[in-house]
Amino acid sequence: MNRVEWARLDPAQREAVLTRPAAAQAPEVTRTVAAMLDDVRVRGEAALREYARRFDGVDLDGFQVGEDEFERAADSLPPVLRDAIDDAAGRIERFHRDGMAVAYAVDTADGVRCERILRPIGRVGLYVPAGSAPLPSTALMLGVPARLAGCRDVVLCTPPRADGSADPAVLYAAAACGIGGTPRGGVFKLGGVQAIAAMAYGAAGVPACDKLFGPGNGWVTEAKRQVSAGGAVGIDMPAGPSEVLVIADAGANPAFVAADLLSQAEHGPDSQVLLLSDDPALIERVGRALEQQLKALPREGIARQALAGSYLIHVESLQQAFDISNRYAPEHLILALRDARAQLDRVQAAGSVFLGDWAPEALGDYCSGTNHVLPTAGAARYCSGVSVASFQVAITVQEVQPRGLAAIGPCAAELAAAEGLEAHRRAVTLRLEAAA
Amino acid sequence: MNRVEWARLDPAQREAVLTRPAAAQAPEVTRTVAAMLDDVRVRGEAALREYARRFDGVDLDGFQVGEDEFERAADSLPPVLRDAIDDAAGRIERFHRDGMAVAYAVDTADGVRCERILRPIGRVGLYVPAGSAPLPSTALMLGVPARLAGCRDVVLCTPPRADGSADPAVLYAAAACGIGGTPRGGVFKLGGVQAIAAMAYGAAGVPACDKLFGPGNGWVTEAKRQVSAGGAVGIDMPAGPSEVLVIADAGANPAFVAADLLSQAEHGPDSQVLLLSDDPALIERVGRALEQQLKALPREGIARQALAGSYLIHVESLQQAFDISNRYAPEHLILALRDARAQLDRVQAAGSVFLGDWAPEALGDYCSGTNHVLPTAGAARYCSGVSVASFQVAITVQEVQPRGLAAIGPCAAELAAAEGLEAHRRAVTLRLEAAA
Repeated sequence: MNRVEWARLDPAQREAVLTRPAAAQAPEVTRTVAAMLDDVRVRGEAALREYARRFDGVDLDGFQVGEDEFERAADSLPPVLRDAIDDAAGRIERFHRDGMAVAYAVDTADGVRCERILRPIGRVGLYVPAGSAPLPSTALMLGVPARLAGCRDVVLCTPPRADGSADPAVLYAAAACGIGGTPRGGVFKLGGVQAIAAMAYGAAGVPACDKLFGPGNGWVTEAKRQVSAGGAVGIDMPAGPSEVLVIADAGANPAFVAADLLSQAEHGPDSQVLLLSDDPALIERVGRALEQQLKALPREGIARQALAGSYLIHVESLQQAFDISNRYAPEHLILALRDARAQLDRVQAAGSVFLGDWAPEALGDYCSGTNHVLPTAGAARYCSGVSVASFQVAITVQEVQPRGLAAIGPCAAELAAAEGLEAHRRAVTLRLEAAA
Repeated sequence: MNRVEWARLDPAQREAVLTRPAAAQAPEVTRTVAAMLDDVRVRGEAALREYARRFDGVDLDGFQVGEDEFERAADSLPPVLRDAIDDAAGRIERFHRDGMAVAYAVDTADGVRCERILRPIGRVGLYVPAGSAPLPSTALMLGVPARLAGCRDVVLCTPPRADGSADPAVLYAAAACGIGGTPRGGVFKLGGVQAIAAMAYGAAGVPACDKLFGPGNGWVTEAKRQVSAGGAVGIDMPAGPSEVLVIADAGANPAFVAADLLSQAEHGPDSQVLLLSDDPALIERVGRALEQQLKALPREGIARQALAGSYLIHVESLQQAFDISNRYAPEHLILALRDARAQLDRVQAAGSVFLGDWAPEALGDYCSGTNHVLPTAGAARYCSGVSVASFQVAITVQEVQPRGLAAIGPCAAELAAAEGLEAHRRAVTLRLEAAA
């Protein structure tokens, strides 16, 4: 992991340190994804079968997971894992439920009632990756808020395993969210670009969805970007490689900090982890702890690649650390500080924040209750993580009585005239005359 | 305006009727916009000057509106227009303020506190078009929620007039929202693609913004799409030509319905308006009223072009009308029904709904209090209109005590193990051991 003194860097070097290492999108990824999307749109099921053969190495009769496979999956899981999934689902539900938006109404004038009502998005498509590892936690992070929102149809795609089955923990998590029981939704064994294409356009029994959710590798992300570019389908957010920024003071525990950095670094070679501290001794100790802990990791190689593009940064003050963090806008922000709670006010942009020494980021990944689908690559400056609101639309409503029209109609007519929109003005004045 | 019997249409014809007439994006628009964006990024101010000369016909010394121009603008407006702007701003503020999200906290386990906190987006860029007409109302619809959110810097771009000044009503509306007074924000006389480029990349004193808002023509929309594709800057929503869908019963007032259809049709030749009714006589009368009212409109030509791509649709039942509407997901939905309030439950997807005979859509455009920046082209299936939340990010927070870690740590460790993420597991177990 690279060590730098922030004060000694010139602006260009500072920008280089804060630039995500994710490889610039190769033009052939863009082209290949576009061709695959087109192929699924035109050839449908035949294309899906071909891609499953080529990329997942399986020949599937059908893509949808049936009742029996759900049952076998549940039976095959150790009870302690089933309990962990149920337990996590419960806490995720508790946190997300309390944050749900509510309908409201305001009389903005006598006889003018304005409201906001909420509706579930009709059909949502969830993508649960299973590349280097199946992610039942992602099924919960998307499935729980979809159920709370009351979406009519919930479709979930996850790549098939070599034997043609879906990961049993993912299936158990999906079932825990009620996915599979909906008449027109269900779980489909489809991965990668072809899964995104199927959910965007509809194919092989997968219905076309209104909005797509979920993390994925660069191919999946590019596919989501392309299908949503025309506006026919929405997506949750621009996703990218995972990242963490830790701000630690002299009192932080180096072993904890190192473990948190590694738990992001093991995600993938293009993950980025940053440590900012005003204490050189802490940085030194974290460096040693990293080396020690790395050796014991099965994914050591991946983690080392990620660390090669990562930085231990010595800052002059904690305020400088917060300034850097707010500019970087990390997906995960750990405040390993003695007075973390008091420092929270300084946080302006981040996906999710972890306060103190006892809140490893891994808790948020699985079961504290918050969502782990979060903005990466600096998008936390303008976008938020997944919540129930991500699965709803807010619709405004106005109900106007004749006396309400009399009260605010002249204001509308004046503004319409100023904008030169005569038909707008007349839609108001015609009624004012009729009501008079 | 085309008349059709829904029951007699085959599926392909039905789809054709519900397809927005907006011209498919010409490839040269995509290319030209990309070239202009690049040009502003590379050449900055020089490129902006050149485009102002070419597209707005003005040679500007500087783009930012100074205090004196704000003052002259306010002095030049008729008091009745100033009052209308102030009045509208007040109602927009009242409605938007009541719908603001709030921070909340939940103890998801003893010793595990999860929270959502809210932060304003640091720097937002608002685009206020002035193509066929200046739109002070759009300045209010964006400026009021930006102020309520507490955004630090608010930048507003609007095209210069032929004499090099900005539209005084737009300036007055901007000032009413506190724009101009922020140290790093302000109003800039820039229009079209070059305005979007300046706000996305920063140029000529316009600072680079985190998120861009506002409607615009096809060029502006394509520019917003392109600058946001890489994820470096956010945008409010995919925008497009304005549209309205009216569901009317036998008791509706044909003159009112015709006036509402025309107030959308006058927006632009690619606007679409639809009337759905179960009463052929009402449709007949609306058709006659349209012809009558059209002749009196200064923008008759534009409205006629829009009506050429629009439909009067006879449906078999009101339920069928709602099914069509939910599939079309209109930007504006008018329920000209005797029991409009009772029918609201049937609405699943729309930008904003107008209940009854006395709520012309023009009220929502200006001053009922709701926002007029709304999803078009069917995006209302998955996205909502602008609100204060559009100018904020929600950040989740977790604060964990050692006893909280003991309570939920084993659940996280179990899930991490199931996902094969050993470093995640260790970040938890290391602390569990230390706390024991």
